[in-house]
Amino acid sequence: MTLTILIAPSGFKESLSVTDVTGAIAEGVRRAMPDARILSAPMVDGGEGTTEALVQASGGRLHRAIVTGPVGDPVPSFWGELGGDGPRTAVIEMAAAAGLSLVPRDRRDPTLTTSRGVGELIVRAIDDGAQRILIGCGDSGINDGGAGMARALGARLLDKHGNPLPEGGGALARLARIDLSGLDPRLDRVRIDAAVNWHNMLLGPKGVARVFGPQKGATPDQVRLLDRAMETWAEQIWIATGRDVGAAPGAGASGGLGAGLIAFAGARLHPRFDIMREYLDFERLLDSADLVITAEGSLDGQSPYGKVPCEVARHAAAKGIPTIALAGTIGKGASETFQHGIAAFASIVKRPCTLEEAIQKGEKLLRRAAEDAMRMLQVGQRLALR
Amino acid sequence: MTLTILIAPSGFKESLSVTDVTGAIAEGVRRAMPDARILSAPMVDGGEGTTEALVQASGGRLHRAIVTGPVGDPVPSFWGELGGDGPRTAVIEMAAAAGLSLVPRDRRDPTLTTSRGVGELIVRAIDDGAQRILIGCGDSGINDGGAGMARALGARLLDKHGNPLPEGGGALARLARIDLSGLDPRLDRVRIDAAVNWHNMLLGPKGVARVFGPQKGATPDQVRLLDRAMETWAEQIWIATGRDVGAAPGAGASGGLGAGLIAFAGARLHPRFDIMREYLDFERLLDSADLVITAEGSLDGQSPYGKVPCEVARHAAAKGIPTIALAGTIGKGASETFQHGIAAFASIVKRPCTLEEAIQKGEKLLRRAAEDAMRMLQVGQRLALR
Repeated sequence: MTLTILIAPSGFKESLSVTDVTGAIAEGVRRAMPDARILSAPMVDGGEGTTEALVQASGGRLHRAIVTGPVGDPVPSFWGELGGDGPRTAVIEMAAAAGLSLVPRDRRDPTLTTSRGVGELIVRAIDDGAQRILIGCGDSGINDGGAGMARALGARLLDKHGNPLPEGGGALARLARIDLSGLDPRLDRVRIDAAVNWHNMLLGPKGVARVFGPQKGATPDQVRLLDRAMETWAEQIWIATGRDVGAAPGAGASGGLGAGLIAFAGARLHPRFDIMREYLDFERLLDSADLVITAEGSLDGQSPYGKVPCEVARHAAAKGIPTIALAGTIGKGASETFQHGIAAFASIVKRPCTLEEAIQKGEKLLRRAAEDAMRMLQVGQRLALR
Repeated sequence: MTLTILIAPSGFKESLSVTDVTGAIAEGVRRAMPDARILSAPMVDGGEGTTEALVQASGGRLHRAIVTGPVGDPVPSFWGELGGDGPRTAVIEMAAAAGLSLVPRDRRDPTLTTSRGVGELIVRAIDDGAQRILIGCGDSGINDGGAGMARALGARLLDKHGNPLPEGGGALARLARIDLSGLDPRLDRVRIDAAVNWHNMLLGPKGVARVFGPQKGATPDQVRLLDRAMETWAEQIWIATGRDVGAAPGAGASGGLGAGLIAFAGARLHPRFDIMREYLDFERLLDSADLVITAEGSLDGQSPYGKVPCEVARHAAAKGIPTIALAGTIGKGASETFQHGIAAFASIVKRPCTLEEAIQKGEKLLRRAAEDAMRMLQVGQRLALR
């Protein structure tokens, strides 16, 4: 009996990329079930690794580009062109042009860092003929509300004397007018979707500066400055575009890039797994699957609240397809996932060991765990067919 | 579909008794499969825990008794009466009367320790009407060749002046004659089987004194004395009974108790798992099982060489029944067990942890691992029945 198995894991934080995870599981499955038909839907979240995973899953290609990095210096970056038959589609992960990992530790001042490189990648993709662009938000090192990106797309940000503001979120506190006359007119003909954390707000007590500023190196004074700057930014966006980013879900994503995407790129923001599933053609893959294998670094009582394994499992369960989960740690409350579509789970750990060992051997352990789980499952198949 | 599952594990060394292991697995299975019919065959090896496990598995009862301990003081001991319909059957583990754990650390002199208590337990079982007695060998603290047991059964061991020798293996170097006139005549009417390590020899370079003497506290001088004493003992046994224990497989088991059992109790010695399987009614249980679950502390490349999981799996495979194995450590070479009847395995470890943690939480981890394995297996059942 040949099974069709959809592998739809998350990456393992700071250990294995989603592409590595997907590959290791596929290899393990094949060892136990050489005949299995394997489909892949690497469940990227818009952060680092998103472009690579989508390009690989779709059979597309990666384009290299030099763009303005978050601290203003040129950085090597990339964007992806998805494969397949549909409209010409590009994928951009904001972290590739304005990610925290591109900000040297001694220059982590989110009042100065810029999202300009993201706008430059958008322009490259449009130059290349993209009809649709997916922008992944996550792992950002900026807090400029997408102001740098807006500039790269042709907007001018002026102070009360009509002079252009310098780069960075801090300067937006002095923003007096947004001039859209130079905005790239091609933006109107491109559909832009952004994958964001739907819960990231731009303003207020849960606003981006207060919640994420400190992680990006902001001092308490800088947090207050950025919070004020984002208020001014939202106000001027409203005046210039008629769009209210202050209350839009996800507008605070990636240092407020979400707001800029709404205002200047006409982007639609989506909860990240919803839009990723669409671009991954997840529903169609699921329709032909008999079994889903998902994975994440940890499976525990938090997993039902927005983590990949339960997101995947719920969709599979809705179609009557069982999902099994592999994880480095099966933690407290993992059995709650049984209520959210996970049918069975297994740890990749095979013996007492340190976290470091488990991380170091992660890929091998995952391959083995997939193989071992398939063998256990085969015992069940055999028993059912007695 | 109701499954009949035979749980046939080993104990986990220095961590969980086989009874605990069997119980934990059964509980885990029931959580995932409330309808499963569960059978138990705790795979004891004759050492500590054998009596308890067999009594519990057969629905028999435990009898308490005070006997002569290995250093001569009275010790609380026990023997078991098996349940069931067949001939009245007793089970004795030699460790309960002459085990190393009954020898205080400061009195670990195997030239002096005695197996007398084992003989006393045999007499009690016969007094109680036993028609068959199973004697488990293992974990012994003596090296008297079964001389103490022989005395308890009525033999007299005399020096060249016709005086009785003192207890202990060392004195046997001065043995000049064995007087069997007082031997309990009821021994002729009882079938006695002993479960031994078939490879334990009484004499020679691989003899009991040289191999196990040091573990029991013997100095090099004492090892030489004991080795000589065992030679004299074998010679006098040959003269008195016509039985050649010098070359008998298993005669060296439990400090040479095997030799005494052959010579004075008319016992048949058996490789331990063979005879245990018979007393556990293992074949009959296996015949009604759909699936076997076995377990041991470690599953690795050594498992095929006489360890419980592969012993069990081979017998199950011969009847076409799949076996799954649970282990604390899935070690190097574990996949070799696939060639020996193991269909799938899983570790009880669910996350990076220390060996101490794994041991401390062993019972809980094992329960969970059994549950998790059954859930994985159920996914396979479900897929097969699409």
